[in-house]
Amino acid sequence: MAEEAAVRAQAETVRRLKQDKADPDEIAKEVSKLLEMKAQLGADEGKQKFVLKTPKGTRDFGPKEMAIRERAFKAIISCFKRHGAEVIDTPVFELKETLTGKYGEDSKLIYDLKDQGGELLSLRYDLTVPFARYLAMNKISNIKRYHIAKVYRRDNPAMTRGRYREFYQCDFDIAGQFDPMIPDAECLKIVHEILSDLQLGDFVIKVNDRRILDGMFAVCGVPDSKFRTICSSVDKLDKMPWEEVRSEMVGEKGLSPEAADRIGEYVQLHGGLDLIERLLQDPKLSQNKLAKEGLGDMKLLFEYLTLFGITGKISFDLSLARGLDYYTGVIFEAVLLQQEKEHVEEAVSVGSVAGGGRYDGLVGMFDPKGRKVPCVGVSIGIERIFSILEQRLEASEEKIRTTETQVLVASAQKKLLEERLKLISELWDAGIKAEMLYKKNPKLLNQVQYCEDTGIPLVAIVGEQELKDGVVKLRIVATREEINVRRESLVEEIRIRTSQC
Amino acid sequence: MAEEAAVRAQAETVRRLKQDKADPDEIAKEVSKLLEMKAQLGADEGKQKFVLKTPKGTRDFGPKEMAIRERAFKAIISCFKRHGAEVIDTPVFELKETLTGKYGEDSKLIYDLKDQGGELLSLRYDLTVPFARYLAMNKISNIKRYHIAKVYRRDNPAMTRGRYREFYQCDFDIAGQFDPMIPDAECLKIVHEILSDLQLGDFVIKVNDRRILDGMFAVCGVPDSKFRTICSSVDKLDKMPWEEVRSEMVGEKGLSPEAADRIGEYVQLHGGLDLIERLLQDPKLSQNKLAKEGLGDMKLLFEYLTLFGITGKISFDLSLARGLDYYTGVIFEAVLLQQEKEHVEEAVSVGSVAGGGRYDGLVGMFDPKGRKVPCVGVSIGIERIFSILEQRLEASEEKIRTTETQVLVASAQKKLLEERLKLISELWDAGIKAEMLYKKNPKLLNQVQYCEDTGIPLVAIVGEQELKDGVVKLRIVATREEINVRRESLVEEIRIRTSQC
Repeated sequence: MAEEAAVRAQAETVRRLKQDKADPDEIAKEVSKLLEMKAQLGADEGKQKFVLKTPKGTRDFGPKEMAIRERAFKAIISCFKRHGAEVIDTPVFELKETLTGKYGEDSKLIYDLKDQGGELLSLRYDLTVPFARYLAMNKISNIKRYHIAKVYRRDNPAMTRGRYREFYQCDFDIAGQFDPMIPDAECLKIVHEILSDLQLGDFVIKVNDRRILDGMFAVCGVPDSKFRTICSSVDKLDKMPWEEVRSEMVGEKGLSPEAADRIGEYVQLHGGLDLIERLLQDPKLSQNKLAKEGLGDMKLLFEYLTLFGITGKISFDLSLARGLDYYTGVIFEAVLLQQEKEHVEEAVSVGSVAGGGRYDGLVGMFDPKGRKVPCVGVSIGIERIFSILEQRLEASEEKIRTTETQVLVASAQKKLLEERLKLISELWDAGIKAEMLYKKNPKLLNQVQYCEDTGIPLVAIVGEQELKDGVVKLRIVATREEINVRRESLVEEIRIRTSQC
Repeated sequence: MAEEAAVRAQAETVRRLKQDKADPDEIAKEVSKLLEMKAQLGADEGKQKFVLKTPKGTRDFGPKEMAIRERAFKAIISCFKRHGAEVIDTPVFELKETLTGKYGEDSKLIYDLKDQGGELLSLRYDLTVPFARYLAMNKISNIKRYHIAKVYRRDNPAMTRGRYREFYQCDFDIAGQFDPMIPDAECLKIVHEILSDLQLGDFVIKVNDRRILDGMFAVCGVPDSKFRTICSSVDKLDKMPWEEVRSEMVGEKGLSPEAADRIGEYVQLHGGLDLIERLLQDPKLSQNKLAKEGLGDMKLLFEYLTLFGITGKISFDLSLARGLDYYTGVIFEAVLLQQEKEHVEEAVSVGSVAGGGRYDGLVGMFDPKGRKVPCVGVSIGIERIFSILEQRLEASEEKIRTTETQVLVASAQKKLLEERLKLISELWDAGIKAEMLYKKNPKLLNQVQYCEDTGIPLVAIVGEQELKDGVVKLRIVATREEINVRRESLVEEIRIRTSQC
C-alpha cells in the first residue's frame, strides 16, 4: 500500500510538471521513474487503481443470504440422507488432464491455474467428472453418494437469473451394476421430493433417453458423424422455435431437409406411457435396436414411477437432449412452470432447476483397464433456487433470523460487566446460545433494542437486587413480560421457553 | 483417450522402425508425425501417460473421512452459534491485487489462476483477508461472523501431519469498536470450549501481544527496521532451542549480541497474572508506552478469563510471536500437549491446533478512505484435528456409520419388487430414511447382511402372507427379533425404535 501511495505521488509530480510545461528532459526523467515504480509494483497487474470488488461472476453471501442458502441445503441434504446416501468431497482443482476430453465444446469454459512449477491444474467444472475419477482411482464399483460443492465455469454470467461463474452443485449419484431402471427411478423420485419440499411452485420433469434420440436420428437418416451436433441442435428446442432449430440443422450443419422434417415430427411429441406404447409400435423406430431398448426401459421406468405416485409431474419428451457428451441412457431435466406473479414483483425467469441422467462410460475413461462402472445421477441447480427463494423472501413480510441466539445477558445498572461475564460463561457452558454487548456499561434500552433488531427472544438481566436475591430477571422480548427466575433454574427456564428454536 | 492410444501406437511404430534399423528418412518421417500428434494432444501438457491421482498436497474425503469431518464441524459450528455468530461465504478466488501485500514472505505460496483474458485472480490464502475485503466493500463496521471454507497454499505438504495445500479453515471473528479485551476474551473462551468439546487431550493456549513484543524489542535495543524480522525469528522458538534462534538473530539478521541476549531473557518467560504484574514493574518495559499498554490490556484479559474460569489452560508466553504481518494487539495459539501413547500406535506429531489475534489495521487497507474497523478473531486448525480424530478412530474398535438409514425395505420371496417400491415410497414420503437393494429378486440373507455391514438397525420385510394380512414384518438387526407391525403403524414404530438416531 505504501508503494502504491508512492506511485500516486510520483504520478502527481509528473502531472504537475506537464501542467507547468516544465523542461521536457525533467519530465522525461520523472516519467521514466514513474514507469519504473509501476513496473516494480507488479509488472503483470496492469491496473493502477485498486478496485474493491469480487471477481466477475462471483458474489459474497452475507448472513441473510446464507440463512436462505442453509434452508435450501437442509431440505436437499435431508432428502439425500433419506435415500441412504453417503457423502464425499474432492479437491476444488484436478489435474488438467483429468478434465480433458470430457466436456466437448464447453472445455473452453474451464478455469486453468497458472503454471507456477509442478502439475498443471484446472478448477473443477462439475462434480461428475471428479466423482468418476474418484471411483476409478479407488476401484469403487458400488456407491450411493452425494456431494455438495462449488464448481467453476468461465461463462458469461447472468447473475439476476442465478447464473454465476462460481456456483454450487448438489449432486446425488448411484454407481453400480444393478437391475435396470431401479436407481434411475429413484433419482427422479429425489427430484420430485426436493422440488415439492422447497415449494417452488408447479414443475415438470422431462425425461428422455440418449438411445431413443440416437435411434430416432438413425431412422430419420442422420449420418452417424452428425449425431452429436444434431443432438445439440435439438437441445435448443426449449429456447428456440422448431423452425429456427430446423434451419440450423439444414443451413449450418448440412442435414438434408427431409431428415430434418422427419426429426421435426418426433421431437414435438411428449406424453406418458401411452406415447411410449405408440412409439414401440412405430414402424420405423421399432425396427431400430437402440430405440427399442430405450423405449423398453422407458416403459419400465414409467411403471416404477407409477408405483412412486409421481407420474403426474413426469413428461416423456422427445425434444430433451441435454448438452453433455457423457450421457448414455436416461436423461432428465426439471423445469419450473411460469407462476402467476402474485407476490413476486419482478418474476425470476424460470428454467431448469435440476437435471441428470445415466453415464455408463465415464468411469471407464479413467480406469487403466477400461473397467466400466454404470452410473446414474442428478444435479440440483441450487443457484436458481436461491434466486427464487431470495426474491420471494424480499417480497414477503417475513424477517429472517441470521443467528440462533436464545438469550442476551444484560445489566440494568453500571459496573456489572463482571457479573454479566460470569453469567454468560455459565450459560455457554450449559449449551445455551447467549450474547452480550461488548460494552462496559451499556444502557438497558440499547440492550433490549438489540434483541428486537436481531430477533433474540429473551433477555437475562442482572441487577444488584437480583444478585442479592440469587435470581435473574428474565424478560420475554415479544410480550415485554418480566419474571424473576432462580439462578439455578435459569438454564432450564431458557430451554423451555426457546424449545421451538 | 482415443488420441492417446493413437500416440502410443505411433510411438510403437517409431520404436519398431528404429529397432529394425529401417531407412533413416522413413524413421524421421514417422518421428515427426509422432511429435505432431503429441503436440496436438496438448502442447502444454508435457506428459503422455495419464496419471490417476489428485493434485499434490490434496486428498479426497471418502464417506468414512467425511463422517469424522462432519463430527468435528458440528462441534465447532455449534460453538460458534452458541456465541451468536452469523455466517458468511466469499468466493474461492479473489482479485490478485486483493491479496497483494498482506502476507509478507508467504506471498510466494499463493496460487494464481492462469490469465485467460479478463481479471487476474488468485485462490484465497486464508479467510481473514477476504473477510476484511468484505467488510470494507460493504461498509460493515460491526459484525460477529464465522466462515468455514477451504484455503490454498503452495506449501510443501506434510500430509501425515495434517498439512495440505488445500485445507479447511474455521474462522470466527468479531469486528467493531468495543470496550477493550471483551471480544478478545470471548475468542479465547471459544478455543477453550472447542478443544474441550473435541476431547483432543490436554492443551495450553499461549497468549501474547504484539505491542508487548514491539516494546520489548525497543527496550532491548532492536532497531525499528528489524522489528518484523526479529519477530519472525522469535516465532521459531517453538521448534528451535534459544541458542539457534539467537545465532540466527546475530548471524543472519545482524542484531547485536547484547540486544539478542536481552531478548533471550524476556522470551523465556511465561506465566500468568503474576508475570504480568512483575513485568508491569519491570524498570525498562514499564517505561515503554507500547509495552505498558499491552501489559495493561493483558492484565484486563486475564481478569476476564478468570471470570470465564479458564486461566488454568492459558499461558502468557513472551516467546509467542505468530507469523502474519497484520496482527496489532493480542495474539494467541493453542497447542496440544504430548499425550501418553496408549491407544495410538503412531502418534500424530502434535502442534498448533488454533490461533488468532487482533488485527485493527487490515480493513483500513481496503477502505478507500482508510476507515478502520478493529477486528479480533480465531482460526481453528481443523486438518490437524481431523488427523488426530482419524488416527484415534482407526486405533479404536468403534465402527463409524456413514449413512443414517433407519430401515431396509426387503422381501422374503421373489417377484415382490413392486411391493418393495410401493412401501419404500410410503416411507420416504413420511420422512423415514430408507434403502432397498437395487435388484429384482434379492436373497433375504443378502439383504440382512447388507444391514449388518452398514449398520442399518431395522429391516421391513414384505412377503405374500404379510401383504394378505396387512402387516409388515419388522426385524431388529441387532437382536434378530421379528415382529409383525400393522402397515398403518409402521412409520410410527420405526420412529420409536430409531429415536436415538
